[in-house]
Amino acid sequence: MPKISKKGILMPESPIRKLAPYAEQAKAQNKEIYFLNIGQPDIPTPKHALDAVKNHDLDILSYSPSSGFDSYKTKLAEYYQKNGIRITKDELIVSTGGSEALMFAMGSVTDPGDEIIIPEPFYANYNGFATASNVTVKAVKSNFEDNFALPAIEKFEEQITSKTKAIVMCNPGNPTGYLYTKEEVQQLADLAIKHDIFIIADEVYREFTYDGAKHHSIMNVEGLENHAIMVDSVSKRYSMCGARIGCIVSRNKELMKTAMKFAQARLSPPTFAQIASEAALDTTNEYFEEVNKEYVSRRDTLIEALSKVEGVKVAKPKGAFYCIAELPVDDAEDFAKWLLSDFDYNGKTVMVAPAAGFYSTPNTGLNQIRIAYVLEEKHILDAVSILEEALKAYKS
Amino acid sequence: MPKISKKGILMPESPIRKLAPYAEQAKAQNKEIYFLNIGQPDIPTPKHALDAVKNHDLDILSYSPSSGFDSYKTKLAEYYQKNGIRITKDELIVSTGGSEALMFAMGSVTDPGDEIIIPEPFYANYNGFATASNVTVKAVKSNFEDNFALPAIEKFEEQITSKTKAIVMCNPGNPTGYLYTKEEVQQLADLAIKHDIFIIADEVYREFTYDGAKHHSIMNVEGLENHAIMVDSVSKRYSMCGARIGCIVSRNKELMKTAMKFAQARLSPPTFAQIASEAALDTTNEYFEEVNKEYVSRRDTLIEALSKVEGVKVAKPKGAFYCIAELPVDDAEDFAKWLLSDFDYNGKTVMVAPAAGFYSTPNTGLNQIRIAYVLEEKHILDAVSILEEALKAYKS
Ligand SMILES: Cc1ncc(COP(=O)(O)O)c(C=O)c1O
Ligand SMILES: Cc1ncc(COP(=O)(O)O)c(C=O)c1O
Repeated sequence: MPKISKKGILMPESPIRKLAPYAEQAKAQNKEIYFLNIGQPDIPTPKHALDAVKNHDLDILSYSPSSGFDSYKTKLAEYYQKNGIRITKDELIVSTGGSEALMFAMGSVTDPGDEIIIPEPFYANYNGFATASNVTVKAVKSNFEDNFALPAIEKFEEQITSKTKAIVMCNPGNPTGYLYTKEEVQQLADLAIKHDIFIIADEVYREFTYDGAKHHSIMNVEGLENHAIMVDSVSKRYSMCGARIGCIVSRNKELMKTAMKFAQARLSPPTFAQIASEAALDTTNEYFEEVNKEYVSRRDTLIEALSKVEGVKVAKPKGAFYCIAELPVDDAEDFAKWLLSDFDYNGKTVMVAPAAGFYSTPNTGLNQIRIAYVLEEKHILDAVSILEEALKAYKS
Repeated sequence: MPKISKKGILMPESPIRKLAPYAEQAKAQNKEIYFLNIGQPDIPTPKHALDAVKNHDLDILSYSPSSGFDSYKTKLAEYYQKNGIRITKDELIVSTGGSEALMFAMGSVTDPGDEIIIPEPFYANYNGFATASNVTVKAVKSNFEDNFALPAIEKFEEQITSKTKAIVMCNPGNPTGYLYTKEEVQQLADLAIKHDIFIIADEVYREFTYDGAKHHSIMNVEGLENHAIMVDSVSKRYSMCGARIGCIVSRNKELMKTAMKFAQARLSPPTFAQIASEAALDTTNEYFEEVNKEYVSRRDTLIEALSKVEGVKVAKPKGAFYCIAELPVDDAEDFAKWLLSDFDYNGKTVMVAPAAGFYSTPNTGLNQIRIAYVLEEKHILDAVSILEEALKAYKS
């Protein structure tokens, strides 16, 4: 047999998607499943974005420029400016999802054997992208007890070696929902400048901040122009995950020139999705306000209900739409599988993401799950009661 | 300044896109440009594919499964079966363009320091994907004189080392237009089996074969089930380059399981584009027949006209829609730039791709260009006369 690559063997399975076969099994048994495992919101996509695609007048579905359509880039830069992030269209490249922007960033700053530092738990696919790039993730553990605030900056500095190329931060955080304060962002920035390494800031949840808290973009840290790389996406902002449009943003010209070579190699981002994304930029503030109101009450409902379940602890998120819960089980992955394969409550069950896959330190977060509060409140409440029943049944 | 990665610095610029700044300059000078540099056909996309997107009824633009929508995969497998390639939907993963399928294949079979063998000249972005993966391309030179037929199989065997993981072949070839015979495909297959390495066959131009010649898919070589990986795309087949849909196909279960991990990390291929691609599968044979007739007469027109230009030699392609021409210049890249920046004939000029970027051996193909015959015949004829005038002016 011809040999699979070592990195291919090492590539982690996505903790969000790896239980899919169990979900298939549950469906085959005619169970109804609440999907709390994946950040796929049930919020309608803005109609004008969907309509723009309905009204397209293309005769030939051509490649777009590798960096994206100029009209889209122009309007996107305006969007950032309106949101207090002063960048020009030449400082961004349109990517196929935030995922591809992360890969461009990783490819542009790391070589095999290099290291990146990430506070954990973190978005699980960072592990995948790092493995694909033969890059080692040095994790700095943040803690459930303080809602996953930024760990002491010394913990980061301890991890820096000559191989460290970047710190990756996710703000607001997936899976923690943690929103970094201005001081925390500044601390990371100071460290990056001191050691002359990049900060890759994944800000795909920028709009999702709650309780009046403000988002602090990495692009707004003074003096960080050459060190800051921002990753963004339309997926969550406009409930347009299936578009596959994101972007990589930096004021570092050499970095952008390099990222552009990766962009050219894959030719272009998808055309229809850029049409939708350009139209989506006309979304009103009211839309975001309503959406945020909805997420706040979902979060509050979820946290309140979960806290009442015996043995369950839950961290309170200030942004995004995820939270980490500790369960009274030894192995949350085992429990998550069992929920799908062996359990139901009145014909219904719940799919959650085992949190261990969001850590890179082995044997960490084994009793935690990540819950995405992307469903209506009544479904969330129903899902939590199912979880409660399941925990009772599982223990015995 | 923080450091750019070594591979980022090494990443080649795309020979197809690197002259874009010169084209911008020409446009700013109000020159009309014939774009013969890029495989972007002017053939209309099948209307039912565009209409399917117009008629979409999505309220939420959600992620699709990582391997693509089941309905699309099912119909795609049927398409292959109808075309004599017996694969099931579980033997394919829908990718974001053939580009991503190539990256999945590369990631699944190579580690840094590994080698792949490719007959050159080859699709330039193979260089980019190899560089991004820290993989060395060992080129086996095919020759202008015999229309770029497969070099003697011994030349391939000579290049095989313990680090060789795959042979990459493009059939029909870009930039050569060469269509491999059944015997040539078999020779490569025998070699792959003998040394237990993969064959990655890029068959994105499968439908574009001329003069009654038949295409021989890697998937139809008996005994090659575990070694064959096919890369495919809707880009050229349906003139749908902007969709960004392709697929990776293999009967090797371990390979597919590995590719699936790469697919999961980037979440999903674009949704609208899958809708268009699924509808495109209803395209009739008549469409392909007409399109092929069109390409044959474009090719014939181009070859005839080019052959008459003093000092120009041209290889005759049997498939795809490219040909390599030798020009009476020392540095075709310099000439290509000059065409855009310093030349015009009645306000018009031509953009071509310097062929050197399609070779990985340095200083090869310096006097060659690649021409994509993706324009109407009258434009092709006009473009060739402009080239003729340009060559006269350039020499003096
Ligand atoms: C933190 C974070 N970054 C990036 C992504 C990638 O999203 P996409 O590729 O859909 O833009 C996600 C998706 O869930 C995410 O949660
Ligand atoms: C030989 C070959 N392979 C792959 C591709 C990638 O095409 P896409 O990513 O649009 O499917 C191209 C595009 O020109 C090509 O010529």
